[in-house]
Amino acid sequence: MYVTVFEPSTFVNRPALGIYPPADWVGRLQAALLSTERRDDTPVTPEEMSSSKEGQPLGCPNLAVLSFNNSFYDRTVGCLGITHSKYIHKLDFPVPDWPVARFPALKYPLEDHVRENQEEERRCLTMVEELIDAWNRKGMPVAAVAVEPIQGEGGDNMASRDFFQGLRDITPLWRWRGIGLLVDEVQNGCGATGLFWAHEHFRFSDTPYVVTFSKKMLTGGFFSKESFVPKDAFRVFNSWVGDPSKAALLEAVVKVIKGDNLLDRVKVTDQHLLNGLKQMQGKYPGLISNARGLGTHCAIDFKDAASRDKTIAKLRERGVHMGACGAATLRLRPALILENKHVDIFMESFDRVLANMNS
Amino acid sequence: MYVTVFEPSTFVNRPALGIYPPADWVGRLQAALLSTERRDDTPVTPEEMSSSKEGQPLGCPNLAVLSFNNSFYDRTVGCLGITHSKYIHKLDFPVPDWPVARFPALKYPLEDHVRENQEEERRCLTMVEELIDAWNRKGMPVAAVAVEPIQGEGGDNMASRDFFQGLRDITPLWRWRGIGLLVDEVQNGCGATGLFWAHEHFRFSDTPYVVTFSKKMLTGGFFSKESFVPKDAFRVFNSWVGDPSKAALLEAVVKVIKGDNLLDRVKVTDQHLLNGLKQMQGKYPGLISNARGLGTHCAIDFKDAASRDKTIAKLRERGVHMGACGAATLRLRPALILENKHVDIFMESFDRVLANMNS
Repeated sequence: MYVTVFEPSTFVNRPALGIYPPADWVGRLQAALLSTERRDDTPVTPEEMSSSKEGQPLGCPNLAVLSFNNSFYDRTVGCLGITHSKYIHKLDFPVPDWPVARFPALKYPLEDHVRENQEEERRCLTMVEELIDAWNRKGMPVAAVAVEPIQGEGGDNMASRDFFQGLRDITPLWRWRGIGLLVDEVQNGCGATGLFWAHEHFRFSDTPYVVTFSKKMLTGGFFSKESFVPKDAFRVFNSWVGDPSKAALLEAVVKVIKGDNLLDRVKVTDQHLLNGLKQMQGKYPGLISNARGLGTHCAIDFKDAASRDKTIAKLRERGVHMGACGAATLRLRPALILENKHVDIFMESFDRVLANMNS
Repeated sequence: MYVTVFEPSTFVNRPALGIYPPADWVGRLQAALLSTERRDDTPVTPEEMSSSKEGQPLGCPNLAVLSFNNSFYDRTVGCLGITHSKYIHKLDFPVPDWPVARFPALKYPLEDHVRENQEEERRCLTMVEELIDAWNRKGMPVAAVAVEPIQGEGGDNMASRDFFQGLRDITPLWRWRGIGLLVDEVQNGCGATGLFWAHEHFRFSDTPYVVTFSKKMLTGGFFSKESFVPKDAFRVFNSWVGDPSKAALLEAVVKVIKGDNLLDRVKVTDQHLLNGLKQMQGKYPGLISNARGLGTHCAIDFKDAASRDKTIAKLRERGVHMGACGAATLRLRPALILENKHVDIFMESFDRVLANMNS
């Protein structure tokens, strides 16, 4: 157990890191995460100071964050403003009036719909540009575009490298009031796609401005471009600024992923997994379709939510825990230690359950 | 060390509690926190479902949360909407346009300003009522009033039981669109005031609707009235829904507070501490004033921020760690194990530093 190399005090005493960082904290962070640096900034005016406390412009400007339909971020007010996957997340919450573009709805199999999918992605990018213009005109400029490399909660919706590079091209960072591209890796990051971060697949011409992560990363946080780091202390801050006990666990996780070459294993297993799903959709064509995935971060659509949910329940009876996402999608989120033999065990159960669903 | 009675797995494996709660989780929560129950609710309409995903009314109604000047909650967008203590928290963030009432600015010593302070609190309550009316008229009804029992970050500002009961009277909960009173115990809770929750001092005619906590409670969370709990699953939800390792630590903390009768100790020490502060302000009248506190949650104002900050730096050189809050306030946040003898040690250092400040 890797965790035993850390002092028990790491797990009991939680220092307020912003004020009293332990002597080894910087080293710990560098071992588990990268570090960022300060940006050059313009001085804050007295008018900005007083209006900030009131929550009014200029200090608190009317800015918007553009997001996509079917997206999911989190449950706090700002995150709900860019979340659009299920009503249950947002019901009764007042949320900001921010623009929502369409995320590409690709047709599968991809090789049979190349031109259609290119046109769909082009339409979605045009909509992004039009919404940015419209919100600028209404006096609430778009400060950032938020996107998930694969829309997890919204149904494992994927788009091409061209679409994402297109977003990257739309969002140049001009001075500090420019448009920043935020890529959310909370559900996609940490190796399941075969690369540590899902957005690495897009080979962006330049890195995104902000990358957010959590969950499998054990600690929530973000990377940002140097230019996004404010020069004043206490602007991006909270009492804890992370939890050393989670960083210790993350350090162990990263060590295992690297030491056991788990990303290489994903690259072997993923084809076997996706081929298995495609074989199943060939066998049960009225029931399942659109097998897709990046690495072992895979999904398949059911004809309706009822058959999807029944499949999940039947699989659970056989000891296979699966999750749902989107309207009628079954999502696969195996651990990185998945091997072909485990895929075979799963496919056998999946086949049996699907055979009974059709009967 | 209490923590050793828990399995190490508690600290390493973090279950997604909403989906796969461990068998002992309910018992753990009951040992550390209370439980809440469901409310009866009206069914969600299809219109509310679709408008929720868009972030528009009726699903996402235009609602406001009323807060007070000098308040502090947190750094997320909704929390920034009710935070008004320092510009550095809010600069460049778009925040909701919600009403801000005045928190009473009491004069000290209280016994010499009884009538003035009563009038001040009455004016602040009237302002709350006027703002609720104004926001209702502009189509953004006030859904909740948020208040700290003692405004911590804003300068250890206190108000009387009458003021808080007045707020409680203004915020009756009528059906689900009523006004709920949220009392934030993040900084005040967990015993420092001599009662476990600071708002217990107010002996409310009925409990607040929501009580939030974090920090010394080791895990962030809230209690709410039964009527605030939505009947649908996944409405108030996230992947983790708390961290069992923090609940284990909290269980140990609560056990120590009760077992060692630490709240009784606070009730002995607090008079000694406040008397010491009053003695100091008598000795250094041009420099410090307004000694105040509830339990050992005490504070004293300096003539300006510079002398306050210099005092903190000089105290640190003598091994005494102190914090600042508000414009020119020194805040005292001793651990619950503080005894009179520790107060004497502190007062000696404080006296020496103040003597040098004046020279």
